[in-house]
Amino acid sequence: MVIQAKLITRRSRNLSDWYTDVILKGELADYAPVRGCMVYREYGYAIWERVKTLLDRRIRATGAQNVYYPLLIPEGLLMKEAQHVEGFSPQVAWVTIGGGEKLAERLAVRPTSEVIIGTMWAKWIGSYRDLPLLQNQWANVVRWEKATRPFLRTLEFLWQEGHTAHRTEQEARDETLLILGVYRDFAVEDLSMAVLAGQKSESEKFAGAVETHAIEGMMPDGKALQCGTSHFLGQNFARAFDIKFLDDDNTVKHVWTTSWGVSHRIVGGLIMQHGDDNGLILPPKVAPVQAVIVPILYDDTKALTLDTAAKLARLLGTGTVLGEPLRVHADLEETTSPGFKFSQWELKGVPVRLEIGPKDLARSQVTAVTRDERSKLPLAYDLAAGSFDFTGLEGLLLGVQQRLRERAEAELQSRLFKVESFQEFAEVVGSGRGFAEAAWDGTVETEKAIKERTSATVRVLKNEAASGKLACVYSGRPARLVAYWGQSY
Amino acid sequence: MVIQAKLITRRSRNLSDWYTDVILKGELADYAPVRGCMVYREYGYAIWERVKTLLDRRIRATGAQNVYYPLLIPEGLLMKEAQHVEGFSPQVAWVTIGGGEKLAERLAVRPTSEVIIGTMWAKWIGSYRDLPLLQNQWANVVRWEKATRPFLRTLEFLWQEGHTAHRTEQEARDETLLILGVYRDFAVEDLSMAVLAGQKSESEKFAGAVETHAIEGMMPDGKALQCGTSHFLGQNFARAFDIKFLDDDNTVKHVWTTSWGVSHRIVGGLIMQHGDDNGLILPPKVAPVQAVIVPILYDDTKALTLDTAAKLARLLGTGTVLGEPLRVHADLEETTSPGFKFSQWELKGVPVRLEIGPKDLARSQVTAVTRDERSKLPLAYDLAAGSFDFTGLEGLLLGVQQRLRERAEAELQSRLFKVESFQEFAEVVGSGRGFAEAAWDGTVETEKAIKERTSATVRVLKNEAASGKLACVYSGRPARLVAYWGQSY
Repeated sequence: MVIQAKLITRRSRNLSDWYTDVILKGELADYAPVRGCMVYREYGYAIWERVKTLLDRRIRATGAQNVYYPLLIPEGLLMKEAQHVEGFSPQVAWVTIGGGEKLAERLAVRPTSEVIIGTMWAKWIGSYRDLPLLQNQWANVVRWEKATRPFLRTLEFLWQEGHTAHRTEQEARDETLLILGVYRDFAVEDLSMAVLAGQKSESEKFAGAVETHAIEGMMPDGKALQCGTSHFLGQNFARAFDIKFLDDDNTVKHVWTTSWGVSHRIVGGLIMQHGDDNGLILPPKVAPVQAVIVPILYDDTKALTLDTAAKLARLLGTGTVLGEPLRVHADLEETTSPGFKFSQWELKGVPVRLEIGPKDLARSQVTAVTRDERSKLPLAYDLAAGSFDFTGLEGLLLGVQQRLRERAEAELQSRLFKVESFQEFAEVVGSGRGFAEAAWDGTVETEKAIKERTSATVRVLKNEAASGKLACVYSGRPARLVAYWGQSY
Repeated sequence: MVIQAKLITRRSRNLSDWYTDVILKGELADYAPVRGCMVYREYGYAIWERVKTLLDRRIRATGAQNVYYPLLIPEGLLMKEAQHVEGFSPQVAWVTIGGGEKLAERLAVRPTSEVIIGTMWAKWIGSYRDLPLLQNQWANVVRWEKATRPFLRTLEFLWQEGHTAHRTEQEARDETLLILGVYRDFAVEDLSMAVLAGQKSESEKFAGAVETHAIEGMMPDGKALQCGTSHFLGQNFARAFDIKFLDDDNTVKHVWTTSWGVSHRIVGGLIMQHGDDNGLILPPKVAPVQAVIVPILYDDTKALTLDTAAKLARLLGTGTVLGEPLRVHADLEETTSPGFKFSQWELKGVPVRLEIGPKDLARSQVTAVTRDERSKLPLAYDLAAGSFDFTGLEGLLLGVQQRLRERAEAELQSRLFKVESFQEFAEVVGSGRGFAEAAWDGTVETEKAIKERTSATVRVLKNEAASGKLACVYSGRPARLVAYWGQSY
């Protein structure tokens, strides 16, 4: 059986087809026989596990601990917070039959867990000594979506949801921004992504929140992808669920809460920000395979090359790069050509390829090729001494990690346009050029009108009040806020 | 506010109340406001995360890789394998409404994932080169249970489910037993549990399996707890889902499959096998906190003791024991007494307590106390030199790990009774003494009659055929099999 190279649509030609191709042909995921759901294949799940490992570490460093709350939520609980129920009810999947019987009360498959968590906290929290309570869970949630795409929008999705309770408003506000910073740092430092971090407008905030903050990524088609949100919930859920504590001044008070989440959606953002016409380019910190060894086989050196490649894989597996054991794979398949293997591993975005052919063998070296620049560098090994140029390899990996970050940041900056007229505004957000930075009178009416005319929404507010002299780009009235606007996924 | 020591029911007096007490008062879990579901609190989830880490490592070592399949399964798929649907239908939670509309086809909240996996495999598997396919997923599942208890039996539970496809029957049979061995080793070596491993009888096997194998733990009340199962599925699912491959002899064949799972139930077994009247005793390999530092505070040495305890915690956190970074916690709370802290950490089962009082301080040592034997050993430290007697501490932890295992194994062996009459049989399984090893004619009628009269079922078959001379303990007919019988959770 002849295995054919899997060709993919060029990213520069059609981002959407390219995206589908890299996911299906790169074997990250597949469509499930359930509408709107996806199956994670080995490689896609390995990327998600890396995301989990790296983000979990950052979340734990803030003092939060992992817990797990039930999947099913009685309807009565979901109804307790008015805005929350209004926001989520239309998206709920309802369990109505269990154990062969119609249930007296329907159970929601959790769309998020504020209400079940609030119920438990009311029981557990009694004193200011119990605060702050900082919890996180890695879980699956279900929201009934119409249009779906793997990772970007799926009926069931995997995420982490953090929930915290605090003694004072200020502490809860600080937590909200602390986590926003954690998300931004994670996206930038671990995933090499470029994001804007800031507050959402009133109409874009989480159902039940006082304030929502988000990180937003710029995609190659100029659209925004919301990659993580951090909500200051005030005392909305504390009042709805009666979560109170005895403070040290001997008075009983409601707690102040926050919630925050990053879902597998960020994997979609990662894919889109970093790929090229040949497929994915994964930042080394998150790549399931950081280096792939590809032997170049000729009849007379085949046995020795394969043997050396296998030994190198074992040797390299003992090395540490970027603070963790190196993730290396040797592709020892004998029936496929090196060229086919190159394209397969490029499609999967492995940051460094280590070629070993007859000349390399003679010089006791591998030829390292970076995924993004295709720059080549020989790296020496000595199997007898058990040594390898790990420093050289780490340098290459760091280089990929940094270049991806710089490229993404430059791309983002080049697609932010300060506009002063609505014509300019519409041109920027309507042409796929990027985000418009525009002054806004701050009213819901203007936001709505802009959305109707351009499909653009406030992605995040700029972190400064509008100066008295600016006029709203749409209404011409005095501006109250400056925001980044764009179409979004 | 005076904090009272939380007293628990003595294990020797009432196992069931003790179990509930250690879980609730040890803050492992709580009841959820959803019938039959539990909430994992920080400490309980940390135990589960240790279980996951240790078992995942063993599963990966067999070559399996992690994946993730959807939570919701269309009814039509569940109906494809006759025995499977018969077994699971009564336990299914059905989603009938989504996005505000009645669904044309009901969706099952997965009770297990064979059918959705079979559907995808039919698509992915084409050639013998695609085999074996070895997958595992860590997921939540829902089965509508009547009587529930935290960890032991819950509507929603957390587990891993492995699924493999093979080219030949023998390979699939080997895989089934390989995994049974992995589960046994995991239970024995990592969790210090004692289990019997063996095949299930026909009537106790998984719905859709050809053979089911299990590990069964003996609980202190003489009942069995099934802690893990490994199923040889033959070609049942391959035929139902049309999973075929082109073999190297150029003929198309159905694959042979297996599935296997361990759930959070094993945490319940771990708790019951190892506790004592003071609470949990956690084997060090799975304990979220392996050593807790408790300073003994007196007015004149308070500041220095607290400071030293904090510094020791940081120093100990850099150490490696049992192949992993030491998990240490310093209890620096100043308002509670050492005695209260001792009982709290004993309740939580921390394997070694490190006391530091004025005498210890003077000698630059901590006094280590093991949870199970309460044996004491001074361990020297030198903060200036950054040194600590890690070897001594590791020895203590290894000792706890081994003694728990030996104690559990001795307990199991002392509760296995070879019986030759039905009177003896009924006495053993009915009195809470343990399991009866008894010859059986191998018929379903006898098994059913025995269950009706004694509530005992075959836990596992003994790994040998009955010799020609044995008579069935119930029917008196010639025995075909020897089995371990017992009541079960």
